Amino acid sequence: MSRIDTNDLYQAYTRRMQKIADLRFSSALLQWDQETYMPSKGASFRGQQLATLSEISHELFTSEETNGLLLELLGRSDLTEEQKRNVELSFEDYTKQKKLPAEFVRKLVETINKSFHSWIEARRENRFLRFQDDLSKLVELKKQEADYLGFKDHPYDALLNDYEKGANVTMIDTLFAKLIPKLQVILKKILSAKSIDNSFLYQRYPRDDQWKFGIKLLNEMYFDFDGGRQDISEHPFTTSFSSQDVRVTTRIDENDFANMTWSCIHELGHALYEQGLPVKHYGLPLGEACSYSIHESQSRLWENQVGRSLHFWQHYYVPLKEKFQQQLGGVSVDQFYHGINKVHPSLIRTEADEVTYHFHIYVRYFLEKKLIEGSLKVNEIPLFWKDQYKQHLHVDVPDDVNGSLQDVHWSHGSFGYFPTYSLGSFYAAQFYTKAKEQIPSLEQDVKNGKFDSLLGWLRKSIHQYGRYYKSEELCVKVCGETLDTQYFIQYLLDKYQKIYDF
Amino acid sequence: MSRIDTNDLYQAYTRRMQKIADLRFSSALLQWDQETYMPSKGASFRGQQLATLSEISHELFTSEETNGLLLELLGRSDLTEEQKRNVELSFEDYTKQKKLPAEFVRKLVETINKSFHSWIEARRENRFLRFQDDLSKLVELKKQEADYLGFKDHPYDALLNDYEKGANVTMIDTLFAKLIPKLQVILKKILSAKSIDNSFLYQRYPRDDQWKFGIKLLNEMYFDFDGGRQDISEHPFTTSFSSQDVRVTTRIDENDFANMTWSCIHELGHALYEQGLPVKHYGLPLGEACSYSIHESQSRLWENQVGRSLHFWQHYYVPLKEKFQQQLGGVSVDQFYHGINKVHPSLIRTEADEVTYHFHIYVRYFLEKKLIEGSLKVNEIPLFWKDQYKQHLHVDVPDDVNGSLQDVHWSHGSFGYFPTYSLGSFYAAQFYTKAKEQIPSLEQDVKNGKFDSLLGWLRKSIHQYGRYYKSEELCVKVCGETLDTQYFIQYLLDKYQKIYDF
Repeated sequence: MSRIDTNDLYQAYTRRMQKIADLRFSSALLQWDQETYMPSKGASFRGQQLATLSEISHELFTSEETNGLLLELLGRSDLTEEQKRNVELSFEDYTKQKKLPAEFVRKLVETINKSFHSWIEARRENRFLRFQDDLSKLVELKKQEADYLGFKDHPYDALLNDYEKGANVTMIDTLFAKLIPKLQVILKKILSAKSIDNSFLYQRYPRDDQWKFGIKLLNEMYFDFDGGRQDISEHPFTTSFSSQDVRVTTRIDENDFANMTWSCIHELGHALYEQGLPVKHYGLPLGEACSYSIHESQSRLWENQVGRSLHFWQHYYVPLKEKFQQQLGGVSVDQFYHGINKVHPSLIRTEADEVTYHFHIYVRYFLEKKLIEGSLKVNEIPLFWKDQYKQHLHVDVPDDVNGSLQDVHWSHGSFGYFPTYSLGSFYAAQFYTKAKEQIPSLEQDVKNGKFDSLLGWLRKSIHQYGRYYKSEELCVKVCGETLDTQYFIQYLLDKYQKIYDF
Repeated sequence: MSRIDTNDLYQAYTRRMQKIADLRFSSALLQWDQETYMPSKGASFRGQQLATLSEISHELFTSEETNGLLLELLGRSDLTEEQKRNVELSFEDYTKQKKLPAEFVRKLVETINKSFHSWIEARRENRFLRFQDDLSKLVELKKQEADYLGFKDHPYDALLNDYEKGANVTMIDTLFAKLIPKLQVILKKILSAKSIDNSFLYQRYPRDDQWKFGIKLLNEMYFDFDGGRQDISEHPFTTSFSSQDVRVTTRIDENDFANMTWSCIHELGHALYEQGLPVKHYGLPLGEACSYSIHESQSRLWENQVGRSLHFWQHYYVPLKEKFQQQLGGVSVDQFYHGINKVHPSLIRTEADEVTYHFHIYVRYFLEKKLIEGSLKVNEIPLFWKDQYKQHLHVDVPDDVNGSLQDVHWSHGSFGYFPTYSLGSFYAAQFYTKAKEQIPSLEQDVKNGKFDSLLGWLRKSIHQYGRYYKSEELCVKVCGETLDTQYFIQYLLDKYQKIYDF
């Protein structure tokens, strides 16, 4: 039997992976539509449609044919470096997916869909109980998933790994153990320093004007509208159906200017990463983002290091004030800058400042770990939540919408996701420190509303590689060292010492 | 070996058909998105994604497993009438689809996707040549399809059958041969009668106000917005992803009030049919519309028999005039009614009046027949078009956008579709005659802006049956006789004799 040419074999692999990606991206569109435009009655069959797409893509991916192709390619020595890496990563994904039975995947997708809708309903009714049964089913399924995937020390490790390869409870525990006390010190200093007035953010900012300002930011910060769009959804998110079609969503609260603005810049950060992924690797691992934490580093970097900096608003406060003369007429750029960076322990994660944000993540991490190990029951969540928020954020949780119902993640079956938000902030601080070092004009550029130097640096240092490197490897390649939370702490100190005069 | 219970077997068949429907409806969403919201760069991978979904659904449907289930069920005598009909129709579809190789289907879908975009480009450039190559490829593929499907007398029969089961060149030729001379007589009488002024339709009608008026119509005419929505697209269409999620689109020309209004009512007619299909048959033939011509009968009936009637505007002219006081202040309801029914041979099919409309269809039918039989080449289309429009509509075609590039259908690979538009008008006239007979208050109801009697009648007489009956059988069931174009001719005579005083 003649040996198949490596190139032909790689082509067959590519075609197969792209076919699976076509299904995955179709699912992503069905989900995008579900959260933006779908009428309410569409929900039930949409759930079934999503389940079918997942089931088929799972079947295709975990088939013997995929296995055969991958094994054959793994034995070839004449692959290019990139081809080799694609095949290795696909095999890694295959090995993991293979552990999940098709029937389980279908059941999970269907339960997720049902849960998403009961979460929506529960929010509407402001009643956790409405969500409780579906959430319990999901937690049981996620425990089962952890068993299928396997783990050494803790079942939650298996789920953490789904979002951050190599992450585990020991690592995250160590990280928070080191960080939380430092954050508590900073927070204490801030809270005993001067008080900042940010009430100007909560005047009425008309919907249309907010939308237009958001679009202006996206446009000027290099979001490619020929290869993407922005819409409105309940919970802002970024999704893509190829690097040529990247969709962001935002939400607008007429009485809160901050809500739209920084969620818009946050999603922009995700979107710039997606739009910067190499199109030639469509459907292959190197066409995908490195990891959830690196993805989050991009959104955080644009949202915080750029979008909450004084330099940024030294440029954008002029057009902003023009649009909102009535609301901001008497507010100086310094007052504005201080206001948007006010540190204030609060109830809602997505509205949290950069310091208290990580207490929100810590509570969810702690809670999820207990749910998955079985030491906390789903019906105990609301009380546990109250207790944790009192302990870490010193706030009283008045109801479920302002408590455990605030985030969509669990209804999507995403357990183990939240820690990547903190990791993202830490990577963002470390990357931005390096960027400033390598682009001497960076802060001046931002002050001039020029973002091409930064975007170019991110494209070159991070985006172009797709999944080639693991998060830690990428960090070493970009920064010359592994993740170090000290950069984040230093960033907070530099910023808030000036703002709060401590 | 124990015999499988019929009920279990039917359940397995249902699951399989629903899985295929899930893929088909996912494709429909990808197409909807493509024509409403997709950014331009999304086109290339969207084409590939659509091709993959089609290929997989074709593979699933034409598999041995489907065949086995269907053959086994066809042999069972304990199916209910509805179950039996579903299985029969699925087997009919299976037999037809089985004739098309998977590779051919994929190629067709990819070519269609490419053609759609070159049609868009060609329209932008107003240059048929830009579309010519892709159209040629499509025509060759459609000839190949006709060969695969098989035919007795004419290859075009195979394509006609795709849209109207049982239709063939002999039947359509006979129909037009009878109709065209009668239409010519009516048209001649009209053109030598008085002239009607409809210039008030072509003032400036602001976009937002038009949109709101369209939404008002949809709402009051029972479009279910909990199970559907309206958006904007280049070419208005209706699509659905189950009877619980039906989408219509419209387009707005600020200088032409007619464009939006009647396309909106037209698509509403399609949508009411889709929303009225039995939800319990999701994914099965009885959950689908009877045929393209019956679908078109529903859109035509609402657009013309209702939406262009004097009764309708005796109700709606009041709110319309309130919204557009400036434009319609000096126009009486009778003047308005005459204006919107002005007969005037023109270039654009979708803007044609009810009389000359069928000349547009006739030209396309004649042209397609020649393309498919090979007696006309694609590069000869623009000249042939000019010639035919001169001969039948007595108009000079100035360019391609106003000529052969005006309709999207060919770029979708839809050859054999246009005749269903004429058939739809004929069925509409016949159904409406019967409806008036069975609902004595019908015209008074329309005059009062009450549409529930008519919609109830359509639901009961037509919508509830899905594909249970063939078009002709349904016509006999509803009207007691087969299709007779005399009802349409009589409808035109009754209407236009009054309007034009001849």
